[in-house]
Amino acid sequence: MNEKLSSNEFRVGVIGGGQLARMMTVPAINLGLDLRVLAEVEGSSAHLAARVVGDYNDLTVLRAFAATVDVITFDHEHVPLDLLRALEADGVSVQPPSRALAFAQNKLEMRVRLSQLELPCPDWAEVDSAASIDAFIANHGGVAILKTPIGGYDGKGVRVVRSAQDAADWLSPEGLAKAGGRLLIEEKVEFVRELAQLSARRPSGEFKAWSLVQTTQRNGVCSEVLSPAPNASEKTLAQAAAIAEQISEGLGVTGVLAVEMFETEDGRLLINELAMRPHNSGHFSIEGSVTSQFEQHLRAVLDLPLGSTAPTAAHAVMVNLLGVDDVEQFFGHYQDTMDAAPNAKLHNYGKSARAGRKMGHVTVVGEDSEAVLAEARLAAETLVGN
Amino acid sequence: MNEKLSSNEFRVGVIGGGQLARMMTVPAINLGLDLRVLAEVEGSSAHLAARVVGDYNDLTVLRAFAATVDVITFDHEHVPLDLLRALEADGVSVQPPSRALAFAQNKLEMRVRLSQLELPCPDWAEVDSAASIDAFIANHGGVAILKTPIGGYDGKGVRVVRSAQDAADWLSPEGLAKAGGRLLIEEKVEFVRELAQLSARRPSGEFKAWSLVQTTQRNGVCSEVLSPAPNASEKTLAQAAAIAEQISEGLGVTGVLAVEMFETEDGRLLINELAMRPHNSGHFSIEGSVTSQFEQHLRAVLDLPLGSTAPTAAHAVMVNLLGVDDVEQFFGHYQDTMDAAPNAKLHNYGKSARAGRKMGHVTVVGEDSEAVLAEARLAAETLVGN
Repeated sequence: MNEKLSSNEFRVGVIGGGQLARMMTVPAINLGLDLRVLAEVEGSSAHLAARVVGDYNDLTVLRAFAATVDVITFDHEHVPLDLLRALEADGVSVQPPSRALAFAQNKLEMRVRLSQLELPCPDWAEVDSAASIDAFIANHGGVAILKTPIGGYDGKGVRVVRSAQDAADWLSPEGLAKAGGRLLIEEKVEFVRELAQLSARRPSGEFKAWSLVQTTQRNGVCSEVLSPAPNASEKTLAQAAAIAEQISEGLGVTGVLAVEMFETEDGRLLINELAMRPHNSGHFSIEGSVTSQFEQHLRAVLDLPLGSTAPTAAHAVMVNLLGVDDVEQFFGHYQDTMDAAPNAKLHNYGKSARAGRKMGHVTVVGEDSEAVLAEARLAAETLVGN
Repeated sequence: MNEKLSSNEFRVGVIGGGQLARMMTVPAINLGLDLRVLAEVEGSSAHLAARVVGDYNDLTVLRAFAATVDVITFDHEHVPLDLLRALEADGVSVQPPSRALAFAQNKLEMRVRLSQLELPCPDWAEVDSAASIDAFIANHGGVAILKTPIGGYDGKGVRVVRSAQDAADWLSPEGLAKAGGRLLIEEKVEFVRELAQLSARRPSGEFKAWSLVQTTQRNGVCSEVLSPAPNASEKTLAQAAAIAEQISEGLGVTGVLAVEMFETEDGRLLINELAMRPHNSGHFSIEGSVTSQFEQHLRAVLDLPLGSTAPTAAHAVMVNLLGVDDVEQFFGHYQDTMDAAPNAKLHNYGKSARAGRKMGHVTVVGEDSEAVLAEARLAAETLVGN
């Protein structure tokens, strides 16, 4: 990218018009970058920066879009790898590159690679039959987590199984074909909490991590994030950052990487999921860090120096806005929410309401952890109308 | 506005497509507000939110624009008052209203009103002849500041005079006509520094002030802002906030108000200029305050509760990016700037370069005042290429 540094503008192409692309718009405005979004539909969350509406499964669409930008990056991980490889063969800078995204798109490939790197994972196996599933369950206390290697997100494609019968549909010929011919089975980790390590890496190698955060899930969807993770030991913090750096380098990740982990009672960290893009666990960084994950992602994919990831205050709490059925009502609660929570930063993704959809989030930062948590929850509850 | 609170969206119309409108785009994205800018030209600084390009001196253009929004506000103070009064007569919510903007547009009317309110101003007089100018100068130590009541900004329309001969052009029939038939003369205050008090007020009355800041001008243009103003006494802080509140109420200002003041050696504050919109002295608040002036302005003009104006750190320093001749070079310095100043927040207004133009600004916040100042200056110098 360095030959682009004296060009008139930095043009970043984002595939996908969701809330992550929307939130990239803000640092693009600040830094004067030319952010261009390829959106799936008109009126997307990132509509302000949408330059093209088209199908990211169509190489012709992708090539035309890539011709207008200096680098291609992503709002989601769903672009077919063969199309990204074709862009790379054309000489397009794709960040993160297809070789890294291969691991994000296939949880089985991810486990293979992480195990090669000797990084801590739950016990796992590749399975494709009832017998192999039942054998794994029998060896792991009668319960396991079964995953479709491809296509899962936000709790989809993940199932607790106590017998192969719990996965009869995934084991059917159609089910297996949809999952890519095989399934991933993992031990059900008895964790004390879930953590996430956010970091960013430039193509030329610079790496920076944010502080480890604690995440809470509700129905498989992230509902609350505490930054930093309360009572994390120095050893845990260092280990989590080291894991993120090893993954970034070992998998060739560029841009923001989120590593979701389990913490066990005996203090071990086990890698759960990876996301190679800005991630819900990093939304706190918009107000809670000198450099937000969205700004850092843009800097990283342009191979510009990374900004400071120092916290702006002792504590940051992010609460997702879930369970809104009526977007009209959402705006109708602004008055009460702003009255009740003068420190709350509201983020409304501009999406129409749908059951369980992430409509936005609220962040509060400050010095008193209890006050910050209470105000963030109050703001989210008032906004959603609970 | 309260009947709008349950409507589907909050639609804010901004007249003017400059950097202030651009920076309003960010909180509009965060809050999910529908910001619509009436820009003067294509490719304005606020182009992302520009919905209309047209002439704000044309009532037909203004009326069509006003019909698409819930409230009209401003990027600048140049819209003719009679046109705003016509919109108000149509029932349009104009914030700040024309009766307040009358004082921002005419420095003589402003002085009359502030003096009625017994607020501290430099000695001043209305003059329209060489004799009256020379008499004022003679009574004020041989020097004074002469101002055209209308049309001045960033040092334009302001002149140091030691004799009426220094203003022969303004006293000519054409000059006087252009200035509105009369001139404003003020004592040349021997100030120790310049300060600015930023605040916001809702139509329904709520008022919030930020901490007092110290400003430094270069060639009549703001070059540097320190927040909070170093070594300001409790008395000074309280007096400055009280002045802002009295002006907001007394002049009927809504939205953000910036009061530029002189501090004299004996600790008096004297009001210099007013701006009824987000202001350069408040750019620090984007990172330096829980609620930025741009978010607060949008909340205020929509009559939504104001956010906390607490600082996010002990110190914030903002340095303007002036004196860039080549915008290509500007981007070419990103790499070095980001390397040298990892805590600096860059704001590039996306404008083409022109001598003396404000191309952007840099802000650094932190706990150590000297480190913050040094990093902000280093970032600005590196970015501009000095």
